[in-house]
Amino acid sequence: MSEEPQVPTPRRSRRRGDDLIQAIHAAVLAEVAEVGVGGLTMEGIAKRAATAKSSLYRRWPAPRDLLLDALYEAHPQELPSPGADDLRGDLIQALRQLIAWMIAPAGIAVRAVMAERQRHPELVEALYDRVFDARGGTFTDTVLRHYAAQGQIDPDLITPVVRDIGEALVFKHVTDANDLPDDEKLAAIVDQAILPAIGILPDRK
Amino acid sequence: MSEEPQVPTPRRSRRRGDDLIQAIHAAVLAEVAEVGVGGLTMEGIAKRAATAKSSLYRRWPAPRDLLLDALYEAHPQELPSPGADDLRGDLIQALRQLIAWMIAPAGIAVRAVMAERQRHPELVEALYDRVFDARGGTFTDTVLRHYAAQGQIDPDLITPVVRDIGEALVFKHVTDANDLPDDEKLAAIVDQAILPAIGILPDRK
Repeated sequence: MSEEPQVPTPRRSRRRGDDLIQAIHAAVLAEVAEVGVGGLTMEGIAKRAATAKSSLYRRWPAPRDLLLDALYEAHPQELPSPGADDLRGDLIQALRQLIAWMIAPAGIAVRAVMAERQRHPELVEALYDRVFDARGGTFTDTVLRHYAAQGQIDPDLITPVVRDIGEALVFKHVTDANDLPDDEKLAAIVDQAILPAIGILPDRK
Repeated sequence: MSEEPQVPTPRRSRRRGDDLIQAIHAAVLAEVAEVGVGGLTMEGIAKRAATAKSSLYRRWPAPRDLLLDALYEAHPQELPSPGADDLRGDLIQALRQLIAWMIAPAGIAVRAVMAERQRHPELVEALYDRVFDARGGTFTDTVLRHYAAQGQIDPDLITPVVRDIGEALVFKHVTDANDLPDDEKLAAIVDQAILPAIGILPDRK
């Protein structure tokens, strides 16, 4: 939450400001997916958002800052279920969030950025620092830490490798199948890989 | 001294044939990495291998058949250690083979093919069928099946998800770090993800 002085702006004009920022965020995500990192300009973003370049420069020094802001805002945050006593369900839900993000404008924009990594390594570094890590690390990470804090998982078992299992297997599935995993596959990833790694062995039926 | 006509011994001529095929295989891998799937021609491959186009057409109907043959031949095969009583060591070794393959010409050629998947989906399909699956599936798979056959692992635990864990975490590491995992990381993948999934929990030290 920002520490802005509470200027008596009417609700209406603030809402208009939020709408504008949302439009600009949507514009930069669509723009980078279409023209790539190298083609990203304030002019192109402003045009797509139907606003003036000056209103972009007022907030962001350069297109990349704007892009990182938009990706940060669009990044989903895992929330354990209310009551938080469904570790398995919450892990599946976290992977569902990952998939929803992958096919949303933010995920598509991230793929465009990653595809140009060799040309723009510092942007990818900023993406990890200022978006992924700042938003809670990998998907399933927040859920795992939550249940560890509740005493349901030994925190020592939540290693960097274990935090990556869910994302890694979702990405592998997408690569091999050229398609998104369905709920049955997500459940298999949770039951057969994530839960055993935190000491919960599969029910043998 | 009279010049006896050099009668080619069978050994010698066979070696020459193998050498030629190796040169052609090396040429197609280098060629696809440089010019992409769309740019692959018998002419280009022949030129790079310093041979005649006709000697290519004698063996392969089209550049893609030649490419798939070369990838098949270059694909490493896991072998459990002699005596085969080192599941953990053999799993780490399988992941080392994966990494060695990734940076070898075959792995680089596969990356070039995968990058053009949307344009050439049938080639990627053939790559999975005729190379990866034909060569024993994912890395660690052969080792897991071997120890299951020996009764050291419950075969029901070797599911498609579990077969993918090692490769998935290696690819994830490469994506995130933009670098290859070292031996310590490979050991962590084996100890913290693969072994728990087959019912072998980590030693807690």
